Amino acid sequence: QGILERLDGGEIVIGDGGFVFALEKRGYVKAGPWTPEATVEHPEAVRQLHREFLRAGSNVLQTFTFYASEDKLENRGNYVAEKISCQKVNEAACDIAREVANEGDALVAGGVSQTPSYLSCKDKTEVKAAFRKQLEVFMKKNVDFLIAEYFEHVEEAVWAVEVLKESGKPVAATMCIGPEGDMHGVSPGQCAVQLVKAGASIIGVNCHFDPETCLETVKLMKEGLQAAKLKAHLMTQPLAFHTPDCGKQGFIDLPEFPFGLEPRIVTRWDIQKYARKAYDLGVRFIGGCCGFEPYHIRAIAEELAPERGFLPEASEKHGSWGDNLSMHTKPWVRARARKEYWENLKPASGRPYCPSMSKPDGWGVTKGAKELMQQREATTEQQLRELFQKQKI
Amino acid sequence: QGILERLDGGEIVIGDGGFVFALEKRGYVKAGPWTPEATVEHPEAVRQLHREFLRAGSNVLQTFTFYASEDKLENRGNYVAEKISCQKVNEAACDIAREVANEGDALVAGGVSQTPSYLSCKDKTEVKAAFRKQLEVFMKKNVDFLIAEYFEHVEEAVWAVEVLKESGKPVAATMCIGPEGDMHGVSPGQCAVQLVKAGASIIGVNCHFDPETCLETVKLMKEGLQAAKLKAHLMTQPLAFHTPDCGKQGFIDLPEFPFGLEPRIVTRWDIQKYARKAYDLGVRFIGGCCGFEPYHIRAIAEELAPERGFLPEASEKHGSWGDNLSMHTKPWVRARARKEYWENLKPASGRPYCPSMSKPDGWGVTKGAKELMQQREATTEQQLRELFQKQKI
Amino acid sequence: QGILERLDGGEIVIGDGGFVFALEKRGYVKAGPWTPEATVEHPEAVRQLHREFLRAGSNVLQTFTFYASEDKLENRGNYVAEKISCQKVNEAACDIAREVANEGDALVAGGVSQTPSYLSCKDKTEVKAAFRKQLEVFMKKNVDFLIAEYFEHVEEAVWAVEVLKESGKPVAATMCIGPEGDMHGVSPGQCAVQLVKAGASIIGVNCHFDPETCLETVKLMKEGLQAAKLKAHLMTQPLAFHTPDCGKQGFIDLPEFPFGLEPRIVTRWDIQKYARKAYDLGVRFIGGCCGFEPYHIRAIAEELAPERGFLPEASEKHGSWGDNLSMHTKPWVRARARKEYWENLKPASGRPYCPSMSKPDGWGVTKGAKELMQQREATTEQQLRELFQKQKI
Amino acid sequence: QGILERLDGGEIVIGDGGFVFALEKRGYVKAGPWTPEATVEHPEAVRQLHREFLRAGSNVLQTFTFYASEDKLENRGNYVAEKISCQKVNEAACDIAREVANEGDALVAGGVSQTPSYLSCKDKTEVKAAFRKQLEVFMKKNVDFLIAEYFEHVEEAVWAVEVLKESGKPVAATMCIGPEGDMHGVSPGQCAVQLVKAGASIIGVNCHFDPETCLETVKLMKEGLQAAKLKAHLMTQPLAFHTPDCGKQGFIDLPEFPFGLEPRIVTRWDIQKYARKAYDLGVRFIGGCCGFEPYHIRAIAEELAPERGFLPEASEKHGSWGDNLSMHTKPWVRARARKEYWENLKPASGRPYCPSMSKPDGWGVTKGAKELMQQREATTEQQLRELFQKQKI
Repeated sequence: QGILERLDGGEIVIGDGGFVFALEKRGYVKAGPWTPEATVEHPEAVRQLHREFLRAGSNVLQTFTFYASEDKLENRGNYVAEKISCQKVNEAACDIAREVANEGDALVAGGVSQTPSYLSCKDKTEVKAAFRKQLEVFMKKNVDFLIAEYFEHVEEAVWAVEVLKESGKPVAATMCIGPEGDMHGVSPGQCAVQLVKAGASIIGVNCHFDPETCLETVKLMKEGLQAAKLKAHLMTQPLAFHTPDCGKQGFIDLPEFPFGLEPRIVTRWDIQKYARKAYDLGVRFIGGCCGFEPYHIRAIAEELAPERGFLPEASEKHGSWGDNLSMHTKPWVRARARKEYWENLKPASGRPYCPSMSKPDGWGVTKGAKELMQQREATTEQQLRELFQKQKI
Repeated sequence: QGILERLDGGEIVIGDGGFVFALEKRGYVKAGPWTPEATVEHPEAVRQLHREFLRAGSNVLQTFTFYASEDKLENRGNYVAEKISCQKVNEAACDIAREVANEGDALVAGGVSQTPSYLSCKDKTEVKAAFRKQLEVFMKKNVDFLIAEYFEHVEEAVWAVEVLKESGKPVAATMCIGPEGDMHGVSPGQCAVQLVKAGASIIGVNCHFDPETCLETVKLMKEGLQAAKLKAHLMTQPLAFHTPDCGKQGFIDLPEFPFGLEPRIVTRWDIQKYARKAYDLGVRFIGGCCGFEPYHIRAIAEELAPERGFLPEASEKHGSWGDNLSMHTKPWVRARARKEYWENLKPASGRPYCPSMSKPDGWGVTKGAKELMQQREATTEQQLRELFQKQKI
Repeated sequence: QGILERLDGGEIVIGDGGFVFALEKRGYVKAGPWTPEATVEHPEAVRQLHREFLRAGSNVLQTFTFYASEDKLENRGNYVAEKISCQKVNEAACDIAREVANEGDALVAGGVSQTPSYLSCKDKTEVKAAFRKQLEVFMKKNVDFLIAEYFEHVEEAVWAVEVLKESGKPVAATMCIGPEGDMHGVSPGQCAVQLVKAGASIIGVNCHFDPETCLETVKLMKEGLQAAKLKAHLMTQPLAFHTPDCGKQGFIDLPEFPFGLEPRIVTRWDIQKYARKAYDLGVRFIGGCCGFEPYHIRAIAEELAPERGFLPEASEKHGSWGDNLSMHTKPWVRARARKEYWENLKPASGRPYCPSMSKPDGWGVTKGAKELMQQREATTEQQLRELFQKQKI
Repeated sequence: QGILERLDGGEIVIGDGGFVFALEKRGYVKAGPWTPEATVEHPEAVRQLHREFLRAGSNVLQTFTFYASEDKLENRGNYVAEKISCQKVNEAACDIAREVANEGDALVAGGVSQTPSYLSCKDKTEVKAAFRKQLEVFMKKNVDFLIAEYFEHVEEAVWAVEVLKESGKPVAATMCIGPEGDMHGVSPGQCAVQLVKAGASIIGVNCHFDPETCLETVKLMKEGLQAAKLKAHLMTQPLAFHTPDCGKQGFIDLPEFPFGLEPRIVTRWDIQKYARKAYDLGVRFIGGCCGFEPYHIRAIAEELAPERGFLPEASEKHGSWGDNLSMHTKPWVRARARKEYWENLKPASGRPYCPSMSKPDGWGVTKGAKELMQQREATTEQQLRELFQKQKI
């Protein structure tokens, strides 16, 4: 069954987690460029991560083609010892995803993401050409459907959807925006409307914000569609980091990005709450992005097991709500083998010299954070305005 | 070159990281039992993790035989669908470790750890028999040296060393204790003396406490040996979790163990500090335990690259001190491409409703924590005393 | 010079601090009732506090007549050993304030605040009668001007202003509301318009929220007046507690209210920031409410000394920005004798087991907090809705 | 009845709180010099504070003669407009204390504290002369007993006791030390022994550390006396600030000292725990030092009311354990009118950008903090060692 048959039939589709962060920690991706040449250099590492997500319950394996447009790879290519062609990276990504998908019941989704061409103000034709180049590989390798993800500007996302729609395959589109909307100030509701009008059957958000913020954003998208009398399936693939203090451009502006985010990593119990809320909101394509490890995906599958009627394979190694602790030798550890314990735990950081919130660097801050910052002593924005002017960016 | 040739020659030997926690998150190990049947069930997952540590700089690959004694596997075996024999688990672990070790320049170490037999008061003969059973596999598979690790009682550790010494191979021994010593109250210095007298050439600590606490403990071991005019190489394989609030039995008694430890995960920069301090203290076998992911091992290798003269393979995907951020498009992210930034960052948790310290559950607390708790309002110990009496443990 | 002459002439007028909280800590006011019978029972204590505020720079001494309406005193009167009449309390308050005001250059303001009559739905006539009773005393004692303060409902505040205006004296009116407006949902801007139309020459906010939130609210009031082409002087008398996590009804709903607020107490440096921001916003009547001690008022006077041209008397015992530390014997304490140090200090709580934010109890939460809570796991509101229904409030 | 009759008879004697911090906030004492010329300049302010402590339950009013030795007053005298003689300050202090003591059932204690003469290495004769000068005033004014307090060096404390003993009046002696002992490394137990041998009938600690640390120190003193088969009454007058992160020299080295300590202020409930623990330890002279406001003293009196059989006067304005909240209009505030609520509250700071612990500046750190700091990344000591050498102190 294809993605739309599943969703139209009321199924919950579980996405996969974040490749660039997971593979950075495993030693195969470089933070900064974040490009996916590992599909060619170390296919076994990419394959293993796909397999872990599949085992954790993913119904969709996205080709590891994030930032794999030709302009991006060239842009960042200087550090790759032997130049690897854009085509090879994309082809290998498709082959690996398909190989693992065949080990279970998963679909393969070819993915495109925002391009340097758009950011450097290349025109529509040129930007679309970049997407089309990737699409050619996806068609040759016959992926099951397509995802346009990680767009900060709805205009570019619309272009991507238009290109992907040329294939005749179902198209999903997610933006990396928060409740304040895209970088040109287009609201989430309006973004959703434009994406659906461009041809996307599934719309939503991915990356940049924590699960709660992403749900808030997708709720605005849903309301936008309702107001415009449009229909689409909803999809969320948030960060697995707590980011209540984020600005408009998300976690990149947090001082901890990207090498000090550890204390923000969400627990499996946070993810169970997210999965439940997403479901209650009507989201049926529920996955994750940066920071999501296989056990986070498993937590989605476990939370929604009552609705879906089955547990993922990896749950053979996981007791629901910690019930495998019930045979621990220490009574006080046994006492943790229950839902109430983990649901209500307020986990300590072990970092008494660290604060609980950071002030984001960067230009734009979300309205929520802005209010918080105005209420506090923040002057970041003004300082940055000056910085911008100095640097003429 | 064998382990002792390397250490005697002044080399820094880098250990590997924690298998049970990493594979639990990847979906192959069950928290609670923590047993390594994945070597038989999912060898590709174990192999991949070994490979990532090798690539990150590990010079020693430990066979994934933690808790793989027959009594433990039987004890926990009830949840394994098809019963897998102790021998098979150990043999597969050796084969996988050797296969990956041959991909680089690493030694294979066969490992034994504390047994349920000892905890349930079986006698010396019986406990030694359990170790001997594992040793037979290690000899058949011809591992390079042996490690007795994760012992809470020096008596059992000594028995393990005595058995392992029968092989004629070099033996390392590490205990999972803090500055207060073992569970019978034997000080770290005395533990070290007994282990060396039993035949261990390398001694130290692993697991249960954060890097700083482990270094403090191994310092006491070093002083104990000096006082007794004994010599041994030093080894540390700590947690990758901040545990300043831990009691005598370590992180198991923290309320966050094992499913809410995320906010405590150490950063790569914390690890660089640890590696430097370990080196300055004279430790030359430097690795990690639970929580250590490949990127943490890489951080050891990068910190000590000046002394060792080379970087690990995985550093091709990592700029020292974040220097790969220097080409980021945002000026404030570029500004993070420097050592001072990451060294001084106090990372926020994004969790304003959570505390920074927890009060450990459990019976014994370290003197340090005890003082802290006395100074605060803690009554945990008394409550637990009562709990113990009720439960007659 | 009267209050309006001063403000019209561009002077900065400094208010006084909070009597009920300060005198509760000194042992003369009971938390809960918060009534001011101390004016009769212990005039020396009230006199001394007035004197300290005068010395710290206050230009206005408010009669200690908070909650001194007859209905309130009766309502709470049961605990007062010998029944003290409403008239006596109000007369004594006037006498004491005048006595101290004469020691310096201060005005005396007679104050009325919200009444139980209004909250229990008594009609306009009855509520106004309560205010008129207090006003009679103020007229007899010839206070310099009048303040209607601590109103949660603009309707009642308007009635108070109408009564006070009967006197012919200048009237100031402040509400204890946040950016979300009054308890009936009237916005700050609309509240301001109604108060000015009712005859108030000075309008603003007092109590319930921290300085930053109060400034945000008074900014909305200012904008409301501008939109309505009305003019009034602005006034702020916030809490001296940090309350970023407050709901719509302010600090009363915080779990720390009223006996665990200590960790929230603002520093003198926080107050200097507040004074500067208030000034920059155009506020010219700048004082404080609950939690404001004399040294907080002095901080206002010191921050605005450049604009005012003089320091308050109490500054003879205070070096600007800690400069009196420059002769300390320890070099690291001497290093604190500078503005940058105190401006940038992030003071620790010494409470590692406590969080930085609380979830407010209570019904209404501000939009900002609401968003934050939605983004987090809060379900407080729903729980409270049920609580309300059960209790039929 | 004199102080010794009371203590010998088994009475609990409640001390008073901190004058310099309270009067600094009220505008009468300058931080830095911390000298008590207010007894002459503003006797009404000193009188009022005495009265509040008396009303809160103090059985002892200490003359406000802290740092009132001639050498100190001269040393700091440059900022006093009109030079006020040492004799006048001390005489006025005695008169005010006696006047208020006569309003109730309190004793007057004349107090001396450490001198600049000692710190600048003047000899025994000279230092003793300074104490004798103050003692002459105390004799002339006929105080009830004498207290030598706030000594960092037991040698100087012994000299003070020897001088005070010349009077024939009972002598109490408290040092401002922690569990690590005095600045020359004399242990608390040894300090206690020396003070008793010098003639002190009451010994203990005051200032510099939080209640829990002070109790730990006085416990060591008690054990020292027991070991030496000596007897004395025990006394504690700690800070009302949480200082778990303090070094050997106490709160002065904390970065928040003295103008940013607000988030550390202890609650009344913290004080009730302190009073109970002090009592259980055998301390019978229980008071406070810097940060202790009248309501903190009242909390001691309320906690020990069952043992003493009566409440202090100021409790007429205070319900035990918040019971006066039981008539609040909001149900969730009424729900706070119980002991369990306040005992278990973990109060939030409202400061999400601040840490919970600070690293102390300064040279010496207590063993406990030292361990904590070693376990963490602190290098403060070494940096300070260098600072010392540069500054040749």
